[in-house]
Amino acid sequence: MQVAIEEAKKGLEEGGIPIGAVLARDGKLLSKGHNMRVQENNPLLHAEMTCIRNAGLMKNYKDTILYSTLMPCFMCAGAVVEFKIPTVIAGESKTFKGAKKFLQRNNVKVINLNLSECRQMMESFIEKNPLLWKEDIGEL
Amino acid sequence: MQVAIEEAKKGLEEGGIPIGAVLARDGKLLSKGHNMRVQENNPLLHAEMTCIRNAGLMKNYKDTILYSTLMPCFMCAGAVVEFKIPTVIAGESKTFKGAKKFLQRNNVKVINLNLSECRQMMESFIEKNPLLWKEDIGEL
Repeated sequence: MQVAIEEAKKGLEEGGIPIGAVLARDGKLLSKGHNMRVQENNPLLHAEMTCIRNAGLMKNYKDTILYSTLMPCFMCAGAVVEFKIPTVIAGESKTFKGAKKFLQRNNVKVINLNLSECRQMMESFIEKNPLLWKEDIGEL
Repeated sequence: MQVAIEEAKKGLEEGGIPIGAVLARDGKLLSKGHNMRVQENNPLLHAEMTCIRNAGLMKNYKDTILYSTLMPCFMCAGAVVEFKIPTVIAGESKTFKGAKKFLQRNNVKVINLNLSECRQMMESFIEKNPLLWKEDIGEL
């Protein structure tokens, strides 16, 4: 999760939305990424999606874990379900509820670490950039 | 839907998976795209996702219609739900059941045109490329 938090900070430095993600298997990092919607003018690039993109084509996602500093939304959760990523570990879900129930209904194990570092990063960002955030989650 | 079918054919000519999509509003085309997983080594790029990417950042997706030659999978359906795209029109769902029920449960209007042209394109592709297809939908 520390690597995902560093990714989130990189995103913030780039003028983007501070959410980071990591894909790992057997304790080894497969890929990492952060929200790039602003940077690449690409609505798909939530942190989890950037991370999955950065891993390239994989035969399967067996035994992988997707870490994200924020509970995944329906798009990212849909990718998790479609590609059969078995476990999601989220930094927090207070600033955004996400699609936790949808993940669980589809047999994905979801762990919420409820980290104040992740929450504070998002709270601060949302306070300064409410419109950008609402656009990111389709609520504008 | 004809434009989406042409997109699917373009994908096939490029050596990719023949699925095409169009995003439209008030009868006007906003963007189009086809499955680019093979072409860009990018697991996210199902046709619907390429199409949403090609539209760039949008304030909202109010009154839009997403056409796809194939019923959307959970990832693409998740994007539809997250971005609040109200209507999905699919070419067929015989070769792939997709996430129709998930879309409907989340108040997305889903219309299946059940077109033999779309079905035959996919049947022919899957017969020739079973592994590529299974990887595309996370079943390898």
